[in-house]
Amino acid sequence: MKEKPLILITNDDGITAPGIRSLIKIMNTIGEVVVVAPDSPQSGMGHAITINSTLYCHKIKNVEGPQMEYSCSGTPADCVKLAVNELLDRKPDLCVSGINHGSNSSINVIYSGTMSAAVEAGIEGIPAIGFSLLDFQWDADFNAIETFVKKITLEALEQGIPKNVVLNVNFPKLAQQDIKGIKICRQAKANWVEEFDKRTNPLGREYYWLTGTFINQDKGEDTDEWALENGYVSVVPVQFDLTAHHSIQQLNTWNL
Amino acid sequence: MKEKPLILITNDDGITAPGIRSLIKIMNTIGEVVVVAPDSPQSGMGHAITINSTLYCHKIKNVEGPQMEYSCSGTPADCVKLAVNELLDRKPDLCVSGINHGSNSSINVIYSGTMSAAVEAGIEGIPAIGFSLLDFQWDADFNAIETFVKKITLEALEQGIPKNVVLNVNFPKLAQQDIKGIKICRQAKANWVEEFDKRTNPLGREYYWLTGTFINQDKGEDTDEWALENGYVSVVPVQFDLTAHHSIQQLNTWNL
Repeated sequence: MKEKPLILITNDDGITAPGIRSLIKIMNTIGEVVVVAPDSPQSGMGHAITINSTLYCHKIKNVEGPQMEYSCSGTPADCVKLAVNELLDRKPDLCVSGINHGSNSSINVIYSGTMSAAVEAGIEGIPAIGFSLLDFQWDADFNAIETFVKKITLEALEQGIPKNVVLNVNFPKLAQQDIKGIKICRQAKANWVEEFDKRTNPLGREYYWLTGTFINQDKGEDTDEWALENGYVSVVPVQFDLTAHHSIQQLNTWNL
Repeated sequence: MKEKPLILITNDDGITAPGIRSLIKIMNTIGEVVVVAPDSPQSGMGHAITINSTLYCHKIKNVEGPQMEYSCSGTPADCVKLAVNELLDRKPDLCVSGINHGSNSSINVIYSGTMSAAVEAGIEGIPAIGFSLLDFQWDADFNAIETFVKKITLEALEQGIPKNVVLNVNFPKLAQQDIKGIKICRQAKANWVEEFDKRTNPLGREYYWLTGTFINQDKGEDTDEWALENGYVSVVPVQFDLTAHHSIQQLNTWNL
């Protein structure tokens, strides 16, 4: 790549989150940065888009650093659509999303606003990476993973991310010197077992809070869960062709 | 299956939509039906779940038919989680979602609330099918496709849907006698090219409406788009392991 790469940055924790500020700082050392991120937290939004409502988007001035920033009322996927089709003069060379406050490993990729932004960029033909740290605290230590974020980003720009694939990168909550390395993984076969906390509101009406326990019954040592539990950064290639090609033959035996 | 199958029904157009009323009517001829559906339209919600807010859910009385019905404030995926983990006494034998007013073929599967409900059921180990009609009108003619919905559902119960796979079924907008049959397909490689309609609100502030054009550059005759354009019902097996297994080898050559 001859000229400085144009890097679109978004997230799902909102434009003021420490995770995206950390990502902006790193990306400013690599390319020309434009930030288009939600004006409020959008965790758990999956691949939601705003089709029956309006979107607001305004330019933020007086920020630290050279980057342009836009704060948007929509979902992470909306932010990418707005950036690519309305706000940017040219197609970004890379879209990075995060750094998420909390894990997006295993099945969490499907609920993740962070990853939906990366996937949306992928659908639009833009190389994309989602970054997440296994620490959902607002004051999580993103400094510990900066060198890994930069290394993965530079290698992605150098090698090119495979077509129709985006990267889901998760970091263990460890000090920099305790991270053992980076592993290419598959998504662990795990899921949430939900419990609903039933309460009564001040007006006497019952309501629920969703809670749950993450259950990993996948014993493979090639999974993202294994890597993270053993001190490695996990990189999972994620696809958006959801066809279960391997089951087409079986379904063709059905009497339809 | 010896006893009557327990069938969970949900959708993303909301519990009052004609599409779900049609699905309830059909499923009442097959099994014991419980409806847990959103109290308002949730189109385009993708796999969103409600993690930072409360959920309300109330039983609806005096409905036509023998089925129990619950109206919920959350997303389609929330409805399935609530049904399985809080409302139902036993695990459903099948979850059906829809019938959606409008297409969920090709890349639309990823934005679809209808399909996210089916996928959520699949993640929880419940056989699941999403049904969509290529007619987004409220008064769409669901009668024309009833026999096909019933046929596919009975065959799914008889044969068993492959593990870790859910079915995405789309129907062309045709009279019953003009539908040529049912085809097992792969998801077409197509996408939306967005345009944002920029307007000014009464207070002088600019806002956007998301609009777009669906572009299918996939010429394959084994795709859902081809089937639907040629008068067939499309059935795509959908997976929720998003790992792009085929690109792991390539990524392992990176210098990380």
